[in-house]
Amino acid sequence: MRSHYCGDLRKEQIGEEITLMGWVHRRRDHGGVIFLDVRDRQGIAQVVFDPEREESFAVANSVRSEYVIEIKGLVRHRPEGTVNSDMPTGDIEVVGLELTILNKAETPPFPLDDHQKVGEDVRLRNRFIDLRRPEMQEKLRFRSKVTSEIRSYLDGNGFLDIETPILTRATPEGARDYLVPSRTHEGSFFALPQSPQLFKQLLMVSGFDRYYQVAKCFRDEDLRADRQPEFTQIDIETSFMNEVEIMDIAETMIRKLFSELMGVELGKFPQMPYSEAMKRFGSDKPDLRIPMELVDVADLLANIEFKVFAGPANDPKGRVAALNVPGGASLTRKQIDEYTKFVGIYGAKGLAYIKVNDVAKGAEGLQSPIVKFLGEEVAMQIVARLEAKDGDLIFFGADSEKIVSEAIGALRIKVGQDLNMLVCEWAPLWVVDFPMFEANSDGSLSALHHPFTAPSCTPEELESDPTTALSRAYDMVLNGTELGGGSIRIHAQDMQRSVFRILGIGDEEAEEKFGFLLNALKYGAPPHGGLAFGLDRLIMLMTGTDSIREVIAFPKTQSAACLLTNAPGEVSAAQLRELNIKLRRTP
Amino acid sequence: MRSHYCGDLRKEQIGEEITLMGWVHRRRDHGGVIFLDVRDRQGIAQVVFDPEREESFAVANSVRSEYVIEIKGLVRHRPEGTVNSDMPTGDIEVVGLELTILNKAETPPFPLDDHQKVGEDVRLRNRFIDLRRPEMQEKLRFRSKVTSEIRSYLDGNGFLDIETPILTRATPEGARDYLVPSRTHEGSFFALPQSPQLFKQLLMVSGFDRYYQVAKCFRDEDLRADRQPEFTQIDIETSFMNEVEIMDIAETMIRKLFSELMGVELGKFPQMPYSEAMKRFGSDKPDLRIPMELVDVADLLANIEFKVFAGPANDPKGRVAALNVPGGASLTRKQIDEYTKFVGIYGAKGLAYIKVNDVAKGAEGLQSPIVKFLGEEVAMQIVARLEAKDGDLIFFGADSEKIVSEAIGALRIKVGQDLNMLVCEWAPLWVVDFPMFEANSDGSLSALHHPFTAPSCTPEELESDPTTALSRAYDMVLNGTELGGGSIRIHAQDMQRSVFRILGIGDEEAEEKFGFLLNALKYGAPPHGGLAFGLDRLIMLMTGTDSIREVIAFPKTQSAACLLTNAPGEVSAAQLRELNIKLRRTP
Repeated sequence: MRSHYCGDLRKEQIGEEITLMGWVHRRRDHGGVIFLDVRDRQGIAQVVFDPEREESFAVANSVRSEYVIEIKGLVRHRPEGTVNSDMPTGDIEVVGLELTILNKAETPPFPLDDHQKVGEDVRLRNRFIDLRRPEMQEKLRFRSKVTSEIRSYLDGNGFLDIETPILTRATPEGARDYLVPSRTHEGSFFALPQSPQLFKQLLMVSGFDRYYQVAKCFRDEDLRADRQPEFTQIDIETSFMNEVEIMDIAETMIRKLFSELMGVELGKFPQMPYSEAMKRFGSDKPDLRIPMELVDVADLLANIEFKVFAGPANDPKGRVAALNVPGGASLTRKQIDEYTKFVGIYGAKGLAYIKVNDVAKGAEGLQSPIVKFLGEEVAMQIVARLEAKDGDLIFFGADSEKIVSEAIGALRIKVGQDLNMLVCEWAPLWVVDFPMFEANSDGSLSALHHPFTAPSCTPEELESDPTTALSRAYDMVLNGTELGGGSIRIHAQDMQRSVFRILGIGDEEAEEKFGFLLNALKYGAPPHGGLAFGLDRLIMLMTGTDSIREVIAFPKTQSAACLLTNAPGEVSAAQLRELNIKLRRTP
Repeated sequence: MRSHYCGDLRKEQIGEEITLMGWVHRRRDHGGVIFLDVRDRQGIAQVVFDPEREESFAVANSVRSEYVIEIKGLVRHRPEGTVNSDMPTGDIEVVGLELTILNKAETPPFPLDDHQKVGEDVRLRNRFIDLRRPEMQEKLRFRSKVTSEIRSYLDGNGFLDIETPILTRATPEGARDYLVPSRTHEGSFFALPQSPQLFKQLLMVSGFDRYYQVAKCFRDEDLRADRQPEFTQIDIETSFMNEVEIMDIAETMIRKLFSELMGVELGKFPQMPYSEAMKRFGSDKPDLRIPMELVDVADLLANIEFKVFAGPANDPKGRVAALNVPGGASLTRKQIDEYTKFVGIYGAKGLAYIKVNDVAKGAEGLQSPIVKFLGEEVAMQIVARLEAKDGDLIFFGADSEKIVSEAIGALRIKVGQDLNMLVCEWAPLWVVDFPMFEANSDGSLSALHHPFTAPSCTPEELESDPTTALSRAYDMVLNGTELGGGSIRIHAQDMQRSVFRILGIGDEEAEEKFGFLLNALKYGAPPHGGLAFGLDRLIMLMTGTDSIREVIAFPKTQSAACLLTNAPGEVSAAQLRELNIKLRRTP
């Protein structure tokens, strides 16, 4: 019905009679002439209505913002002096010949170019208006392009797109499941998948060799800014490949995406063992754009009187780490207080520091509430080890290893961002050599990834000392965000049973929960492995977006509600009766 | 890790040292030599182990069916006389140099090439084995190709792939919803979508212009052979296009699919009004491969005594239709009895017929229990109108219009298939000009498609006589199966309210259920329309599969259970408590 998109008009169309369809973005009267900025998916074109064409002028006079209109018109050069080089269509304008109103519009609940002033609730309630904003159009269009590129890359590499069920059985990721009562199996429930993990492993046992899926996954968890109850995963699994080959395929995919859609060359991703990442950056997803590292100083502090440092320094589960902030001596007392509060979030009980005013003066040149406790010699040894220079500031963390790594690791990022220390725009890496297990407070072990991750040792070695065993897992990290992760999986039944035993999953429970997987491992399971990328997070990173809700067309609020449709909602008693359930409390 | 897929080896590799990985498909001892047929995703290669290479021969001797193995070997010509031209790899064989067992396998619960003898239950419970069968591999690979082709066609035509929510509000398709209790909103429930209908309309209001999604949809209905609780839809919506343009885009897509993936040229699809389809074929999804049509004969029977015919012939809601079966006079009494039983499924109380033995003899040449009731003149008028020839048989249906159309329409298909009357392999068409509404037994009206379908008249005309109003809907039919359907939607608020009124949906209910749509229509909704294809059904048709379970990797049984994972399953009391629900009866 249209001949061109508004936003696509260029000089080449000058002289052509065209038909446009779109929304009235703005109407201006100027010197007796009416200018309509007409908007469609591709952009905005300016259409001019002259009073001499009475009929169309009258209609143009009656339209208001967001009316849907059809225009027949003639493309011409803009008159000299009115060319707008900021607009892609700024060289031309359309002389309106005929104007038809296709649909009227009430005044929108908020003006499109002024959405900042309205609360997110209003925007979400009127998402169909909010999505008209060019940023939202661009983000969702970009998202569509990303999945399309990913698919064509994987299709081209022999991966098969295979759908796995949404109505399924509780999966083992450990988060809370969304449940769906079954009508035909009284008292039973489906669970929505937290990931297609077991299905993709079964597909490998079936011999599909290379699988992928852009898969919806579900977790009924309390939401943070980067979480949604339903999220999308680029899910990949392969057979007969080792971690080197799988990481290469995945890395090439991400590199291509950045190169083709953003013109960014990420280069070869470095690899870093988990232990090194924790030691140097206090994080298993280090942001390598920030040129500061945690430095261990426990050995220097083991023999001082000051228990706050000496305690953790002598505790095998403790850690004392320092962070040198270049130029940090200019931080004010108030700023330091704020950082002290910040590390408190991670359980740190304080934040000791040394300002390095003049190294040449020795301990005299240091300004710090703690030098007197450390002793001057130790203080200078620390300054030397951290290679601090005049004008720097050294922060300290001394507590359990977990608290120090998390607190000083997070402080590193925060200070780095506050002081604009980023040395590059994109810093990808692989973190590898994760431990198989982490210890719970009661001494039991949990899987650091999931119980299907293969260890890099034999079942015997694993069972003899599970806490030191490393896994064949790998996480892809970009700018301090985990983009994706995966592992080589266990394909041998006895190894799988060993892992279950270590996790305290008895034979009966294993059979009940994962019987079908154990069963599948009996009948010729190939060596296999894979990984999954969080699509929402990838799009957030690529588009520089802070909130996950900005990269999803119809997101949910932090209380997991859809303000647009009012979901979740009430249902009838009859519906519940059919499902053999009732409410425990009437709300 | 592998150098080649087994199934990809050809003469070109002769002389190369290669590495294969796959499953032992079959092991044969022959003249002191061991032959292994090794299978992977691409097919089967023959590997030969000679006793002279002791080590690998010993391993080859120990392997059994479905073991996972790695082979290093040398490709060579098969010896003269042993070339197998039925196998793509039949020109060559691999001399096994090294053989490693990657994983052992117990004897599978059923042999892959003998699955027919085992029940479907056993196959579904061991789906990871069942999916190894070449047919299943091929079907799922074909399915992946189809979605990939569809995506690239739609991407190439400017459609954006936009995800809509799975956790949402009850949708208006009218089937039973799957419900998901909300933990954070006590007493409230999400519904899984029966289609993304309202969301895609909102995306048009947002100006995305062209949307598509390969969308999971859910219906909690009792299952038939071609239904699953979750199914996949190719969902499409566009703005500023009329039905001609939308149908063209969709038709081109299907034509391309058949042409590129199957080498089948479907040609231009004919269009047929709903009324004509019902009249000529007794169905809104006529199978045009069968060269028989229903012929109305009520006018010839209106004045006879025989009430069985004269009653419906004189009833405005009745129908009397005849079907001439070429060569049908050879049907036996027993066959005719079976057809009589068959039409009984559709409510027909009997199945009158006339065998045409010798037209030249007039009524003498007819053989029928009913000629005496019709009178000879009327009988011959009927024979003439149906252009029946010697050896034909005419069936009759006389009852309500609904029963006659359904019963004789279904009979037409059954007889056509039984007598191998198909005149072509593929017969696509569009059915158009559907009525807006159908009458319920209580006189109220239901939407024939859904309440958002635009009528082809004004709101005033619609309200003055809703029963005769036609809609702007279109269904794509192939070989008697509805492949997809859609419509131009209502984009004007007053029209939408008219339709709700006619359907007996009061203002309050409309606001409660569809308030967000009505609201969206206020703020500049563009003219829009779209359609959706059932992907599972499309794959069934293209692969010539009878059961929907054969084109889905992990399907559910007719009682909506997954035999592989034992879903649905029991959940803990604590989980239910968190969701504020309890079981009504303990099962």
